[in-house]
Amino acid sequence: MTQAAAGDLDRHVVELDRAHVFHSWSAQGALAPMVVAGGLGCRVWDHAGREWLDFSSQLVNVNIGHQHPRLVAAIQEQAALLTTISPPTANLARGEAAKRIVDRAPDGMNKVFFTNGGADANENAIRMARQFTGRDKVVSTYRSYHGNTGAAVVATGDWRRVPNEYARAHVHVFGPFLYRSEFWASTPEEECERALRHLARVIECEGPASVAAILLETVPGTAGVLVPPPGYLAGVRELADKHGIMLILDEVMAGFGRTGDWFAFDAHDVVPDLITFAKGVNSGYIPAGGVVISDPIAAHFDDVVYPGGLTYSGHPLAMASIVASMDIMADEGIVENAARIGRDVLGPGLAELAERQPLIGEVRGRGVFWALDLVADPETREPVAPAVMGRAKALMLERGLLPFLADNRIHVVPPCVVTDDEAGTALAVYDEAFTLLTKELA
Amino acid sequence: MTQAAAGDLDRHVVELDRAHVFHSWSAQGALAPMVVAGGLGCRVWDHAGREWLDFSSQLVNVNIGHQHPRLVAAIQEQAALLTTISPPTANLARGEAAKRIVDRAPDGMNKVFFTNGGADANENAIRMARQFTGRDKVVSTYRSYHGNTGAAVVATGDWRRVPNEYARAHVHVFGPFLYRSEFWASTPEEECERALRHLARVIECEGPASVAAILLETVPGTAGVLVPPPGYLAGVRELADKHGIMLILDEVMAGFGRTGDWFAFDAHDVVPDLITFAKGVNSGYIPAGGVVISDPIAAHFDDVVYPGGLTYSGHPLAMASIVASMDIMADEGIVENAARIGRDVLGPGLAELAERQPLIGEVRGRGVFWALDLVADPETREPVAPAVMGRAKALMLERGLLPFLADNRIHVVPPCVVTDDEAGTALAVYDEAFTLLTKELA
Repeated sequence: MTQAAAGDLDRHVVELDRAHVFHSWSAQGALAPMVVAGGLGCRVWDHAGREWLDFSSQLVNVNIGHQHPRLVAAIQEQAALLTTISPPTANLARGEAAKRIVDRAPDGMNKVFFTNGGADANENAIRMARQFTGRDKVVSTYRSYHGNTGAAVVATGDWRRVPNEYARAHVHVFGPFLYRSEFWASTPEEECERALRHLARVIECEGPASVAAILLETVPGTAGVLVPPPGYLAGVRELADKHGIMLILDEVMAGFGRTGDWFAFDAHDVVPDLITFAKGVNSGYIPAGGVVISDPIAAHFDDVVYPGGLTYSGHPLAMASIVASMDIMADEGIVENAARIGRDVLGPGLAELAERQPLIGEVRGRGVFWALDLVADPETREPVAPAVMGRAKALMLERGLLPFLADNRIHVVPPCVVTDDEAGTALAVYDEAFTLLTKELA
Repeated sequence: MTQAAAGDLDRHVVELDRAHVFHSWSAQGALAPMVVAGGLGCRVWDHAGREWLDFSSQLVNVNIGHQHPRLVAAIQEQAALLTTISPPTANLARGEAAKRIVDRAPDGMNKVFFTNGGADANENAIRMARQFTGRDKVVSTYRSYHGNTGAAVVATGDWRRVPNEYARAHVHVFGPFLYRSEFWASTPEEECERALRHLARVIECEGPASVAAILLETVPGTAGVLVPPPGYLAGVRELADKHGIMLILDEVMAGFGRTGDWFAFDAHDVVPDLITFAKGVNSGYIPAGGVVISDPIAAHFDDVVYPGGLTYSGHPLAMASIVASMDIMADEGIVENAARIGRDVLGPGLAELAERQPLIGEVRGRGVFWALDLVADPETREPVAPAVMGRAKALMLERGLLPFLADNRIHVVPPCVVTDDEAGTALAVYDEAFTLLTKELA
């Protein structure tokens, strides 16, 4: 294809998109989507060959990098064998995927329920907790994202609706976030202690016997990479145990290498009752997610019908991609690479950047999971305006870096396979963009 | 692999499954899942080479048949190119999939929002209707299934929860079903008229200005293949228009060839405001679903942010499988085959079977979408007991047929590519099984 023809193809793709594709979380009128035609590792490109260093991992899901050849080959092989089969059957790829996942999970968690993604993983974990406890309320935090579903089963008319008419009784609390503390705290210890007291008080006031589950992202992601202070999750676990409440840890974004561990909670000395996952489990090469279930909850459903399910639960092609992805991550030390890059390159590099760049109010994170909290004023910590974020994005894209933006933050979230060189390049682009931006704002 | 080794592998698959896989809609203790290792067209087999004629299409989704070589090749090609990319981008496969679908949809429906499956298609259609109308209630039928989600977005803590706190205000009505009429009707005309009057009365009593949507499966599927009587859907459309209510037709099971049309509503002289789809759109080779959106609803979100989305919306690999599947179905006349088989083979064959077999109370359906309503007594129409259904299933499996069971019914739902010979074989197996069953019950 000539350069001109490739440019025409990019324009055709945008036209087709604007005519017929309705996009997530957006007003549709003003969209000008970038074209992505292909990718490899930490890079993506359009048809004309413009290339970007992907420090977004798309929606923080391509942990293994784009188009990993061995993972692509595994998908092609399973496609030739069997793509889809219904959930009531048994299938080798499905059994092996479940085994791979429970082998990485804590002792006493031996079964997996597979879904299409993270939202329905949380849906099903919530349902399991409610069914198991016979209680209704779910406590989660204001700074969280757990998925976009919330109505289909209540619209359902047949018997499957009746045990599921639960989409109420959600209670929201504040989690620990020292930089923007809701508790007037000034040290991590104080923030931890006060966040736990706040949670305990809310549960007390709601009536502990009415609370089925506490649902937390282990490290709240889209909300700002809020690594919990030491002791917080252990304190939540203790509170849950005291009241017979199930602890659901949402590892959809934080799990499978993102924080430099297989599960983000591995670093926090805590074991949940239910784990939800998606994204990094197979880097989204095929839509898949699921719930890892503790033995007591699994056993509860030995005799009781579990009132949930979906057509593509345990989809063989998705399962084969999980098996291959987890094997590749283990063989190539990809989780260890994420830990090392965080500790030795991104951690120090971003800290140094923050020293130099007054726009950066705080750097938070670990592994390949970081946030730069951008502020108009370092004293008041007032977030920068949306227009500043738009300009930051433009400056980075111009310099060949695809950033991840959320509110007033840049999330530094490359694939777990990111190299030292690529991290260095990204740090230089951030630096240049912030320097220009600061000048423009002066 | 030797026969003995293949048998061992089947046993290993079941052991792995029972140890680690948690199944949909089941008590887990007594499960004995059949192993499926591969398939082609209307046949599936285990590792030992036992083969079954698939008259279930798994969960009524494999419309194109198992492992269609051209569809498998298209998946392998796109896998080599680009498996996954985030929703805000533009991508050729995504644009082309949307174009294929709107080309089959009625005039005035030009945009598609893609999801992972049918449940989140309905979730998003409901959200669009509520956002567009500013109303809350959704009317659907008792005999329906729309998906298993209902809580994740209400558990969500960030702003995306606030415009979605809607998982309440669902109202259920009875739809038309003459064989088991809720309206003391004795003719299709009477059933239609009374079902419409019932719906109108419920809407009147709920307050028409509070109703956002009427959500109906065009042909309720799992509930029993309840083809609506002539005029019913047109009457619903009229009622919706009168009150400014959105009509959502759920084509997840009924669409893409199942009834012998591209959309099941094509035969009913009605145009909905929103169409939901999944299953047959790509036969589930990759998890995918979506919503086709009317122009006024799409335009509403030109300036207003649409508060919904998901990581795998418009997933390139899923999109490529939609493009290929729809092209293959068109090139090979697969929708036409489903219509012909229904009209010339299954329709007459099942009618004749019902004449001979007193267990069959009613035969309903069209295309490759039929139900046999099994009764203990043809006069009272009392459904057969669950044990009878279990025995019917065993007799059919022994004879190499994989049936689809729901309550007291056998659904006759082969892939749309089913041949005359295969339909003949299935009819003979049903016949033999019912004859034996009747003897056993005598």
